[in-house]
Amino acid sequence: MTTISELDTPCVLIDLDKVEANLARAQALADKAGLKLRPHIKTHKLPRFARRQVERGAAGITVQKLGEAEVMADAGLTDMLLTFNIIGAAKRARLKALHERVTIRTVADSAECVDGLAETFTDPAHPLGVFVECDTGMGRCGVQSAKAAVSLARRIAAAPGLAFAGLMTYPAAGKYREAAKWLADAKALFARENMELPAITTGGTPDLAHMAEAAAVATEYRPGTYIYMDRSQVAAGAAGWDDCALSVLATVVSRPTDTRAILDAGSKTLTSDTLGLDGFGYIPAYPEARIAGLSEEHGTVDLSASAQKPAIGAVLRIIPNHACPVSNLFDRVHLVRGDGVVETLDVAARGRVD
Amino acid sequence: MTTISELDTPCVLIDLDKVEANLARAQALADKAGLKLRPHIKTHKLPRFARRQVERGAAGITVQKLGEAEVMADAGLTDMLLTFNIIGAAKRARLKALHERVTIRTVADSAECVDGLAETFTDPAHPLGVFVECDTGMGRCGVQSAKAAVSLARRIAAAPGLAFAGLMTYPAAGKYREAAKWLADAKALFARENMELPAITTGGTPDLAHMAEAAAVATEYRPGTYIYMDRSQVAAGAAGWDDCALSVLATVVSRPTDTRAILDAGSKTLTSDTLGLDGFGYIPAYPEARIAGLSEEHGTVDLSASAQKPAIGAVLRIIPNHACPVSNLFDRVHLVRGDGVVETLDVAARGRVD
Repeated sequence: MTTISELDTPCVLIDLDKVEANLARAQALADKAGLKLRPHIKTHKLPRFARRQVERGAAGITVQKLGEAEVMADAGLTDMLLTFNIIGAAKRARLKALHERVTIRTVADSAECVDGLAETFTDPAHPLGVFVECDTGMGRCGVQSAKAAVSLARRIAAAPGLAFAGLMTYPAAGKYREAAKWLADAKALFARENMELPAITTGGTPDLAHMAEAAAVATEYRPGTYIYMDRSQVAAGAAGWDDCALSVLATVVSRPTDTRAILDAGSKTLTSDTLGLDGFGYIPAYPEARIAGLSEEHGTVDLSASAQKPAIGAVLRIIPNHACPVSNLFDRVHLVRGDGVVETLDVAARGRVD
Repeated sequence: MTTISELDTPCVLIDLDKVEANLARAQALADKAGLKLRPHIKTHKLPRFARRQVERGAAGITVQKLGEAEVMADAGLTDMLLTFNIIGAAKRARLKALHERVTIRTVADSAECVDGLAETFTDPAHPLGVFVECDTGMGRCGVQSAKAAVSLARRIAAAPGLAFAGLMTYPAAGKYREAAKWLADAKALFARENMELPAITTGGTPDLAHMAEAAAVATEYRPGTYIYMDRSQVAAGAAGWDDCALSVLATVVSRPTDTRAILDAGSKTLTSDTLGLDGFGYIPAYPEARIAGLSEEHGTVDLSASAQKPAIGAVLRIIPNHACPVSNLFDRVHLVRGDGVVETLDVAARGRVD
């Protein structure tokens, strides 16, 4: 078996034992809370792991782009939620093709989006399920009030080829209580209006431990990053370093000064995502080292606070700030167990940006 | 001919007329200054444009990673400088294979790097050219003093299979005078030591207009971004908006509030690179709009300061902060002239991270 030490750098390692533990923990939390789990595959972009999530009990998967849905459908996944407004005739045609072959539902947060879908999907015998996306505090997409959610749900329900599927939100990290209150208020309004509310789906990994509280109103939970975890999730208290399944292997290629090391991993490897953190990753073997800056191919490490200093040629594992975009940068990832490389997989849904 | 309006979003457009104008301008500046031009292909990652740069007078190309060199060699490029320390036996073997088929030279900033190369390259009849990388203010790789440069040059010259090629630097943006002084001091020391200094190669795009000053000491100039330009180069005064050849086409998919628009272009499209700028790109049609935040697939636009506000479905062109990593995110780019799509090219050296 190839060992990690034989790999050329930079490259991505996925620790299979940690993946399995992370999947098991989240599924157990969901089962205990009585929530369906619908993992977001944007983190791994691998059909292998999507199938594994379903095998372990997930109700289906979440995808962010049509291209991801197409890759997953090709790989045999059959139940997916596309949590992105589909706008424009070309994209609606692709969604229709998917709707013919798998169970796929989507979201909308505007009359324009619903009306476009209603134009394309016209078969009452095989309607497209559409959730109303709600902005519960994230400040991204979503209707701004319960009243607007009811109104848009009515518009969906009135379209012969559409079916109102429920409410969908991606809550701001740490704001699960605010999100739950928003959704509870909306649920109450739907009840007052005598409108059926088939499902309420929420996320994500930072507030995984609070799934039981989400379950007071939600019916489904959509975490993504939990399969790999990363430095941002450790910072959010959602994981420990030992839970981090994805790491980047990099080599020290220069030691220009006593306190500076240069890695062969820059923003093309670790991404420029800071997610509010200082520096661009964590090096477990050198916990006091700070990845202070990235250019495209170089990572600049400040060793001022580190008593131990890696030599030129040293190969280091790095926990990135944000695992998901790292998956998107690599054509292949190495699945490892301990120091052994079990298999190398193409990242099938990498770069599926549209 | 396909028109831009028929393209699905998000996608990357490359304006061919602007590319040609940018190439012509830089080549003319280099010719006037008496400098060889050796463009860095990391920006476009396209053999087509690498060949065009050579056709227009470039002495060869610059690559940052072995994988890029391999793609360019496969595409018929024959003269390249690899401006990255090659560390480790596996990478040296790849470099050796390239050295057998094309003219390729590399850099070193440490005895460890030189000694590794000296172990692999042993043929005095076909030596590997090695530049000493100098840290002239960038704070990345590079020897820290002229004395260290002389010492490392001696080590290279003493290796039978290596040939000392000169000094290489990537100066900090705006610090061309400091870099030139560093190099002039080093050149003086080489002269005092009676050591030949075959070439001095420097860069980059931000200080393109100061090429004549660089020519007082340098012999070669290696700009990269100049072929496309971007928002950071406009901010640096190296380009105007009309020079920006690369743009991202994105669709407004949501208008959740009066002052917020959401684009289908996030960090997987525009990258999280800020390069010290506020926001994540510039929208020429809505100059007062601010791309305030990115998640992976969503761009959040603040329209507070914009009297005109795009509707859902509007398709916008965005000049990204940093063109180079955008090239790295897309499998394909569309070459355009006016509103027509001339051709769609695979980004051959995309993701060649090692």
